[in-house]
Amino acid sequence: MSGLFISFEGGDGAGKSTQLRLLADWVRTASGREVVVTREPGGTDVGRTLREVLLHGADLDPRTEALLFAADRAHHVASLVRPALERDAVVLTDRYLDSSVAYQAGGRELSGEEVEQLSLWAVQDLLPQVSVLLDLDPVHLPQRLTGAPDRLERAGDGFHVRTREAFLARAAQDPGRWLVLDAAAGIEDLAADIRARVAPLLGVAP
Amino acid sequence: MSGLFISFEGGDGAGKSTQLRLLADWVRTASGREVVVTREPGGTDVGRTLREVLLHGADLDPRTEALLFAADRAHHVASLVRPALERDAVVLTDRYLDSSVAYQAGGRELSGEEVEQLSLWAVQDLLPQVSVLLDLDPVHLPQRLTGAPDRLERAGDGFHVRTREAFLARAAQDPGRWLVLDAAAGIEDLAADIRARVAPLLGVAP
Repeated sequence: MSGLFISFEGGDGAGKSTQLRLLADWVRTASGREVVVTREPGGTDVGRTLREVLLHGADLDPRTEALLFAADRAHHVASLVRPALERDAVVLTDRYLDSSVAYQAGGRELSGEEVEQLSLWAVQDLLPQVSVLLDLDPVHLPQRLTGAPDRLERAGDGFHVRTREAFLARAAQDPGRWLVLDAAAGIEDLAADIRARVAPLLGVAP
Repeated sequence: MSGLFISFEGGDGAGKSTQLRLLADWVRTASGREVVVTREPGGTDVGRTLREVLLHGADLDPRTEALLFAADRAHHVASLVRPALERDAVVLTDRYLDSSVAYQAGGRELSGEEVEQLSLWAVQDLLPQVSVLLDLDPVHLPQRLTGAPDRLERAGDGFHVRTREAFLARAAQDPGRWLVLDAAAGIEDLAADIRARVAPLLGVAP
């Protein structure tokens, strides 16, 4: 596969979708490469059905939830991400398997390790070349979140603190893949830091 | 758990739902116990959504398919089967995890073993006390199947032969759990054989 696969991770309200959009525009202009913008859960038709079940449906036990996220991810990678990478595109995804592992560690009863194994099996070990962590102290959350909270957002403050710690711990374990940024910084500063990390992989100036 | 958990397995058109209904009526009358009749995939509200995706939706890669069956099963067991067994009910299910393993072996690219591990994780190792295999030579299939074929049914003859062999192999490995019957026998004869196997577990006459 010759494409470039980049994930954006972090809590809700950290600015992932803004930065993803800015990077997509820049990659198109700077490199002329095809850019595919997608998300998990829900990046495919099947995924949108599963996203509805996951975020707004019935109470789900932790195993069902983990399996649905993994099913969404398996289909997303098999039907959209891998084909795009095979035709040399740059794929930017709003969340990937690190979100499942971090959210699991944040509040559910399964171990992060079993959730990671499940996800790696689902995607046949496909990991992004770059994962951008927009790290936000949960103290900033109330001002940033808009709209009705979904099921995961409602899970309470301790949940957000544990999830954040889990993201940071994952990033520390694999610094070659991760770019950790303070999401409280300005939008343009963050965008410049992300471009600086990605530019060499595209052979262009940041 | 003090309930009794019985699964009916075998290819489509083997008569599972007929025998399940006959056994349900008999258990109610003979024992007075609560009987819960259910199915996989699709025994719950969430499961009905997943069943639609699985049987009539888009083309799915084997991992997505296995994960969706496992998610359906996890939710089915956590929300319906276990609570019923805990209140002493007799639970009869049309298909359970053996179907996933056998169908996987029948035609997909994953090993039966990884599919079995996934399902056992999903249900925290809950297995039926009795699994009835209605074994049907695929040569009888065309006359028995009615209605429009779903995605699995369309998969071709070799698929049905391999699936049947996989069911028989699983039954041979665990004879204490399985009751293997020739589905070409008469409906009343089959029902009597099933009652004979179940009656001692209920402490009643067959």
